[in-house]
Amino acid sequence: MQARTLPLAYELYYWPSIQGRGEFVRLALEQAGAAYVDVARERGRGRGVAAMMALIEGDEAHAPFAPPFLKDGDLLIGQTAAILLHLGGRHALAPRDAAGRLWTHQLQLTIADLVDEAHDVHHPISADLYFADQKPEARRRAKHFREGRIPKFLGFFEGVLTRNPAGDAHLVGRSFTYADLSLFQVVEGLAYAFPKAMQRILRDVPHVAALRARVAQEPRIAAYLASERRLPFNEDDVFRHYPELDG
Amino acid sequence: MQARTLPLAYELYYWPSIQGRGEFVRLALEQAGAAYVDVARERGRGRGVAAMMALIEGDEAHAPFAPPFLKDGDLLIGQTAAILLHLGGRHALAPRDAAGRLWTHQLQLTIADLVDEAHDVHHPISADLYFADQKPEARRRAKHFREGRIPKFLGFFEGVLTRNPAGDAHLVGRSFTYADLSLFQVVEGLAYAFPKAMQRILRDVPHVAALRARVAQEPRIAAYLASERRLPFNEDDVFRHYPELDG
Repeated sequence: MQARTLPLAYELYYWPSIQGRGEFVRLALEQAGAAYVDVARERGRGRGVAAMMALIEGDEAHAPFAPPFLKDGDLLIGQTAAILLHLGGRHALAPRDAAGRLWTHQLQLTIADLVDEAHDVHHPISADLYFADQKPEARRRAKHFREGRIPKFLGFFEGVLTRNPAGDAHLVGRSFTYADLSLFQVVEGLAYAFPKAMQRILRDVPHVAALRARVAQEPRIAAYLASERRLPFNEDDVFRHYPELDG
Repeated sequence: MQARTLPLAYELYYWPSIQGRGEFVRLALEQAGAAYVDVARERGRGRGVAAMMALIEGDEAHAPFAPPFLKDGDLLIGQTAAILLHLGGRHALAPRDAAGRLWTHQLQLTIADLVDEAHDVHHPISADLYFADQKPEARRRAKHFREGRIPKFLGFFEGVLTRNPAGDAHLVGRSFTYADLSLFQVVEGLAYAFPKAMQRILRDVPHVAALRARVAQEPRIAAYLASERRLPFNEDDVFRHYPELDG
């Protein structure tokens, strides 16, 4: 029998071919240097998409609604923001005090709202329909999203950075939290999906732009982004580049 | 000078004429029997919508993105689910153990997703446009929402109830949590907005229907619902009854 000296690896469950909402969890795990198995991307017994679906459709008391979810020993945690709340405390990716933890979480929930809206730009009618079946609606929604919503959300985070009593290099306190990693990811995604609009918008939020650049240079994040573990953006993902929706 | 013997009342900030997302916080405060001021609904110095907007637009480090938000002494907390996470721990509206707290929060985040989708049914293109300017899109989206999304979400909560190891009367453990109150509220809202569809859907989720009835009979909730503090549903709210979107 093998002696178990290492802590158990986390098991992350998410769709294997997109960054999606799972990417916010991957970035936190990578920055923490945590051991994890990206279960649905692996082959073999108890691995793959089938293993993920079995947990969702199974009869575990805490079976989650949808991916991503994380197994940490006996704990099964769904909802991206709840997973990050859990990881933040374990890996110093959030402040220790209750007020700081709650503020970081609140920022994450606001990023989640922006991610939801970014998704609905290309699926304004239903996620069950193809983009081609809701293109005129998507065009209308995209205009409002680019002109109203992205500036409003990123302007909020610009304000959070400039008002941070510990300095404007991080959203919370003086070191990286999962909220910084998530803001990086949402800006990356928006820049992929709406390159023209984002070039314009980012000029007005210099602290957000600087934070994005700084996260990309963090050694563990940089190594991750250069690895095969980082999936490329694509048009099955939350952030999609459809030129007709940019401008 | 007056001696302060009572704990400070919470200050809730939310739009004064709708239930909206603020209602999930109101229900938790009412069930907790907590003292609170519904600031934007009051008149006078430091009250009203102006006081709410001043906090959002002000230069407090933790100024929130949008209502609802709660002041608890020095703490200023935005995002409905984060507010409930905070209140749940203080008022026994969530389990004490970390796993139970996280599970309750996860359910709340899933309810929040359903609420977002319910809102977007009547605003599929943009929240900045009137319903009249996005009616054909709303009709299309409503069909998918009624036939696919509501049954999927409520079916998930039905499963959570039937799999609860402590019994099927509550979502978590053996007593009321804020998630139960929130599920009540979302079912009330959906039944107001889509009475025909919900009559059909609720037949398939008997435990959800029973929980809804039980929450309404909780003495403090019943007293609240009968009071003037409970605003009526209306067509400026998240849940709107447009007969052409029901069916």
